[in-house]
Amino acid sequence: MLKTQIEYDEMLSVLGRRLQPNAIRKLTLLLGSKEVISLAAGAPSFETFPIEELADISARVIRERGRFALQYGPTRGQGALVEAVAAILRARGIKDCTTSQIVMTSGSQQGLDLIARIILDPGDVAMVELPSYIGGIIALHNAQAQMIGVRQDDGGMVISDLREKIDRARSEGRRVKCIYTIPNFQNPSGVTLADERRKELIEVADEHDLLIIEDDAYYDLYFADDPSRLVPLAALRPDRVIYLGTFSKVLAPGLRTAWLRAPDLLAGKVELAKEGADLSSSVLDQAIVIGAISDGLIERRLPELRRFYRVRCAAMLDALERFAPPGSRWTKPIGGFFILMELSAGSDATAMLPDAIESGVAYVPGQPFFVDGSGANTLRLAYSKESEESIADGVERMCRVFKHSNAQARV
Amino acid sequence: MLKTQIEYDEMLSVLGRRLQPNAIRKLTLLLGSKEVISLAAGAPSFETFPIEELADISARVIRERGRFALQYGPTRGQGALVEAVAAILRARGIKDCTTSQIVMTSGSQQGLDLIARIILDPGDVAMVELPSYIGGIIALHNAQAQMIGVRQDDGGMVISDLREKIDRARSEGRRVKCIYTIPNFQNPSGVTLADERRKELIEVADEHDLLIIEDDAYYDLYFADDPSRLVPLAALRPDRVIYLGTFSKVLAPGLRTAWLRAPDLLAGKVELAKEGADLSSSVLDQAIVIGAISDGLIERRLPELRRFYRVRCAAMLDALERFAPPGSRWTKPIGGFFILMELSAGSDATAMLPDAIESGVAYVPGQPFFVDGSGANTLRLAYSKESEESIADGVERMCRVFKHSNAQARV
Repeated sequence: MLKTQIEYDEMLSVLGRRLQPNAIRKLTLLLGSKEVISLAAGAPSFETFPIEELADISARVIRERGRFALQYGPTRGQGALVEAVAAILRARGIKDCTTSQIVMTSGSQQGLDLIARIILDPGDVAMVELPSYIGGIIALHNAQAQMIGVRQDDGGMVISDLREKIDRARSEGRRVKCIYTIPNFQNPSGVTLADERRKELIEVADEHDLLIIEDDAYYDLYFADDPSRLVPLAALRPDRVIYLGTFSKVLAPGLRTAWLRAPDLLAGKVELAKEGADLSSSVLDQAIVIGAISDGLIERRLPELRRFYRVRCAAMLDALERFAPPGSRWTKPIGGFFILMELSAGSDATAMLPDAIESGVAYVPGQPFFVDGSGANTLRLAYSKESEESIADGVERMCRVFKHSNAQARV
Repeated sequence: MLKTQIEYDEMLSVLGRRLQPNAIRKLTLLLGSKEVISLAAGAPSFETFPIEELADISARVIRERGRFALQYGPTRGQGALVEAVAAILRARGIKDCTTSQIVMTSGSQQGLDLIARIILDPGDVAMVELPSYIGGIIALHNAQAQMIGVRQDDGGMVISDLREKIDRARSEGRRVKCIYTIPNFQNPSGVTLADERRKELIEVADEHDLLIIEDDAYYDLYFADDPSRLVPLAALRPDRVIYLGTFSKVLAPGLRTAWLRAPDLLAGKVELAKEGADLSSSVLDQAIVIGAISDGLIERRLPELRRFYRVRCAAMLDALERFAPPGSRWTKPIGGFFILMELSAGSDATAMLPDAIESGVAYVPGQPFFVDGSGANTLRLAYSKESEESIADGVERMCRVFKHSNAQARV
């Protein structure tokens, strides 16, 4: 009766069975070890990492505070860091933000996973943008939520479409629980939610008693001199918004240090979920970020960082103007890392990717970002990694592939 | 129709509603800022942290490899670290261990959470030791598993009780999926699973087609000169065992760097679940651990670490011999951090804790570690944090409280 062959598939939970590979991470396999100009990677450039300063800070915090920085730490995060984050959020307009609302997380990804787990039961509905961030989609998918996509235009989420889709879902008896949005320089679209829509979005949430998950990873990386229009939804309606932010884009993503701000009761639940998930985030990473904040390192570098990404964005927009095939259009970001390009109807960005890589350039096909399966003719372009010259060169190579493919299609 | 008062409780998922505070972490509130001898904290002593060496290593890895160590990293972990862990596990007797079986995790806690999520559906049964590690219990609870406790004696899990409980659960139509065990110097009991029981445990798993989750956080911290009896279950039956280990106890827990080893298919699922959970663990922490391994720092310190905990364990055993109230008994660990003390029947370790703290000593009541609600007369004593003198002093104070309470009970 001994069972020697183990059928692992039969041992999996529903979640274990529904886990899917991240379509973007799969792409890295396609890239292999080939040297290409990467307009694909959505990571900050390593040129922006303050290597010398962080080397000094890390040695210092270990020497001076090692007995704490190397020990287990509180689940919510190091006290000084939680206080610093609360101050950052008050400066962003979330006026009454207190430490009881904050939980430090291992990247915003963990915040997304934890909040999805504590508010969504299988089958519950989460409204997401078309397209939306793949990591957010994965977290919602893993909570076994049903995602309904809402159209975006140059002003971000189209509120009339949001209303319509919520009404339809509710008329079908579905339980709509939350709206997941990236209001500033969205990943992957690069679009920013218009001012008046921020208020309307909150009205919709109020009317239908929904929570808003506001993922604001790129907040600090605006290109204009004045960030006054980037009012967080959490500043407008703190009791309905879970607000996620991170030090990944303004310091270094390898220090997995981000935060989640939520109304007290929800923050308490996130803390409990995190305790079961990993006890706490890296204590050393947090101590280094505290050091970087108190040295003024993060604040001091922001103007330089904004310039770094602004000139690269301009280089990409310029190259697209020059080389993009007829019938294509693209977004014009005012911050962040990304441009979404839309090719003429019928184009297939996934199918053309191997040719692009063969020509020495990589991008991310847009379709995986669209929860309704649309977007086959779109692609995400990141200007965060390469130099201005490489960006221009990469866009030219890529557009040549698109034009060639169009010409073939017409034959 | 505007709903202004938000009922957060109604917005929670089943998990959100069932989350419970960790009974041990709650205890820290009780401790407040009072200066006490802590026989409670289950953490390594900060005296064991190699502060100077880690300060140097961290500055070095940031300077030399910052563009990688500060960047996003692969979900499975840094390649060099995954290879080093595979080598460590081959040396522990898991002969065919390859990198495809390894996923680096943010502490073993994350490994427990991820594996619970991918194998357990609500209502599935996990067999656990009486008592068992609270973090493991929380991870299983959060996966909405039903836990069934199995008796332990001085040789670890009692296999006849395990068989009986599995048979009963199956006869009730329940789906038993896994056995969670800490075979070496168990937390909280300090007990080590006897050699012959290791084989029997695997036989039971084979007979009932169960997975074994083997949590071996303390493996390296044995007191004897010869670790040959500590054969991992994963070495005996790699295809049925998920094996968890960590650098927390032999280097520093603030570097949240641990690993999970599982058969390829399950490791792949854990990787996917981790991608949704936090993308990757701290890349800097991993780079520092790689540096510590390649410098020989971890290996070199082990004899000293073993001695450190051995003398403290001996001090505690000695103090218990001298001061323990009549009718009490305790375990005799051969490694690790913990002794489980059992007071005479009817004693209530939770009720006596405030008096103990008043007398200047803290311990952890045992009951939360027992999933069947028993263990009210037990407590966990950690000898990992205090000096030999403080341990003796603390045990004496604590036992005075127990004796006083006994005397009162007889009046």
